[in-house]
Amino acid sequence: MATINKNYSKLSANYLFPEIARRAALFVEKNPSVELLRLGIGDTTEPIPEPIIQGLRQGVEALTKIETYNGYNQGEGDIRLRAALASHYLPLGVKLTPDDIFVSDGAKSDAGNIQSIFGAQNVVAVQDPAYPVYVDSNVIAGRTGQFEEGRYQGLVYMPCLAQNNFFPHLPEQKVDLIYLCFPNNPTGAVANKKQLKEFVDYALKHRAVIIFDAAYAAFINDPELPRSIFEIEGAKKCAIEINSFSKTAGFTGVRLGWSVVPVELEVEDGPPGKINQMWRRRQNTLFNGASNIVQQGGLAVLSPQGQKAVTKLVEFYMGNAAIIRQGMIEAGFRVYGGDNAPYVWMETPSQLDSWQFFDKMLEKAGVVGTPGSGFGPSGQGYFRLSAFGNRENIQRAVKRIQDGLRF
Amino acid sequence: MATINKNYSKLSANYLFPEIARRAALFVEKNPSVELLRLGIGDTTEPIPEPIIQGLRQGVEALTKIETYNGYNQGEGDIRLRAALASHYLPLGVKLTPDDIFVSDGAKSDAGNIQSIFGAQNVVAVQDPAYPVYVDSNVIAGRTGQFEEGRYQGLVYMPCLAQNNFFPHLPEQKVDLIYLCFPNNPTGAVANKKQLKEFVDYALKHRAVIIFDAAYAAFINDPELPRSIFEIEGAKKCAIEINSFSKTAGFTGVRLGWSVVPVELEVEDGPPGKINQMWRRRQNTLFNGASNIVQQGGLAVLSPQGQKAVTKLVEFYMGNAAIIRQGMIEAGFRVYGGDNAPYVWMETPSQLDSWQFFDKMLEKAGVVGTPGSGFGPSGQGYFRLSAFGNRENIQRAVKRIQDGLRF
Repeated sequence: MATINKNYSKLSANYLFPEIARRAALFVEKNPSVELLRLGIGDTTEPIPEPIIQGLRQGVEALTKIETYNGYNQGEGDIRLRAALASHYLPLGVKLTPDDIFVSDGAKSDAGNIQSIFGAQNVVAVQDPAYPVYVDSNVIAGRTGQFEEGRYQGLVYMPCLAQNNFFPHLPEQKVDLIYLCFPNNPTGAVANKKQLKEFVDYALKHRAVIIFDAAYAAFINDPELPRSIFEIEGAKKCAIEINSFSKTAGFTGVRLGWSVVPVELEVEDGPPGKINQMWRRRQNTLFNGASNIVQQGGLAVLSPQGQKAVTKLVEFYMGNAAIIRQGMIEAGFRVYGGDNAPYVWMETPSQLDSWQFFDKMLEKAGVVGTPGSGFGPSGQGYFRLSAFGNRENIQRAVKRIQDGLRF
Repeated sequence: MATINKNYSKLSANYLFPEIARRAALFVEKNPSVELLRLGIGDTTEPIPEPIIQGLRQGVEALTKIETYNGYNQGEGDIRLRAALASHYLPLGVKLTPDDIFVSDGAKSDAGNIQSIFGAQNVVAVQDPAYPVYVDSNVIAGRTGQFEEGRYQGLVYMPCLAQNNFFPHLPEQKVDLIYLCFPNNPTGAVANKKQLKEFVDYALKHRAVIIFDAAYAAFINDPELPRSIFEIEGAKKCAIEINSFSKTAGFTGVRLGWSVVPVELEVEDGPPGKINQMWRRRQNTLFNGASNIVQQGGLAVLSPQGQKAVTKLVEFYMGNAAIIRQGMIEAGFRVYGGDNAPYVWMETPSQLDSWQFFDKMLEKAGVVGTPGSGFGPSGQGYFRLSAFGNRENIQRAVKRIQDGLRF
């Protein structure tokens, strides 16, 4: 008699983005004449630049001839791409080898799967609010209790609020796995080196592991802010970093990401290298590598021409972020983020909770955003607007909000 | 203090294919003048046919223009591809809807991840020998005990030997999850409808779930043999089917597969539709869909021209299988499979165990095959040769084996 993984029934509600899609579809059905403007999901809208398209085309054309055809990939990824990624860290003063790096089909998969190499009893801490995948993957794996009063029992929430500039205090109890994301999704906050060092020191002291999501690192403008946790001394002994080609190269649908699981990483119950070996085993046992076509595209992203094109794309989206940020300030909202991150985080006005404000913005302005409460209890009373979108739509959305929702 | 998932340390040895690669590399190092011929991994070697390449090109070109650019995919896959896959089953008399179908980055990922929606206490039965992913994924998830005397404690092995024509007897104890693979990797055996019905009836009676791997269905020649478990009455209530574009369209490196998790599937502790919903949640929470470029290629595979091209490719590889099969018979081996499957399964001669024979074939013929014992204890004394390879190499390998290893 087969039985289900009962942890699934703990999951609090529909996954955030499908729920947004459902409400948006309902609105469109009722208001067929209104063009909906979407600043909800952080989904790229700009075409992939030519130098990167060239790489993807090469990937396809290689498969047309027997001499260049290639079959199964390594689970860890193409060695050329891993070497190029290692070089990519050098300007940050971070020395990695290809053995430290694992290419995947995207940061979401890695963020969800990485917990599986750790024990079921590990206590997990997340920033609150946080990208839902960190929480949901650990709920499914049984590292939490039931969802009660807006919180999973046994999960350690580290509130990130205006009062602490959206940077969490160190946990008061001992925790084992700590998820950090900077530039942060959803708050748009970025940690400085001193702040990250606090967490690295904590992890070294308590032999915890930090899972650092750096998917938005390329959006940092300020040269003083760290783009990788490995810029912090000691981090290679206690941190895993996850990154992505999605937002920088327009690969949200193309699917390519990578994780750094340093060979030096240590845990109490295994020798150095153990975690690296386990992730290698996981990726070779349950995954067959990212698409060879896509990995060829990834190589093109890391080429000098590719990087120039990426810089332009990032500047374009950060231009959007500036428009949203300024527009929301002018409309009277309290606004955070959007300067070193492609997300603008704002307080909902007039005692509206996040979903009430979502419905109001949908109703009055025909604009879809993301309710902060979808990212955790401390997201309640906040709202996220995404800078991924085409310029004209962003401008129209800002104007509609200013006209329909001025406070 | 972070701790590791200790189940990883139960895994018996290096993953089979990396171990083969290691021994092969050692041989090449010692014998630099011998060209190694590889009939080990079932890896495609022929270029992807033009009608399918067209689809991949379209997938890339769509990303060059803002009007056709597309970002995030649905975790379940492109609705057009799911609809085309549903139609693909109609000639078999199997009626599915797109809701039953989930597109993924390959059968290996699905075969590895599917267990995660079931409870930790489920008793798992596998054919012995079997594709290692079924076993390893359940070991990692904690559904077995230690590896002792060649077997994982708590795992139910269903021997498939020459004596039972490589079709397993029904398990004597009650089991909850049953992995079946036909055409079988590695034995090349194919179940008939009566045999599959026995297992479907067992599953319905005991409310077990069958996980049916049909990745090689397209290689069946005999029109009487079932290509899908859903050709058997009642299977939609008790079976999940996994399939792949890898071997038919040359997508081993391109990465595309699908699973059928029927809405009708029932388990004791959930209403009908529950398993389908859970897999949908899993795929949307921990995965962001297969690459949009690759899914466009998948649509081309299912087009009439694509299917013609696939038929030719399959015929080509089955031509290889016939050459291997005939050549090994002539060399005096006892040979199975290779007629409705791209794998030839042979008994190792002279009391050699599988790895001894592997080393002997490497040494005497410079040919790499796959030791049967790598697929489970009942694979001991057997050896697998793969029909995936280019024709000339296959012919040379057969000749070398005939010259160097005649018994």
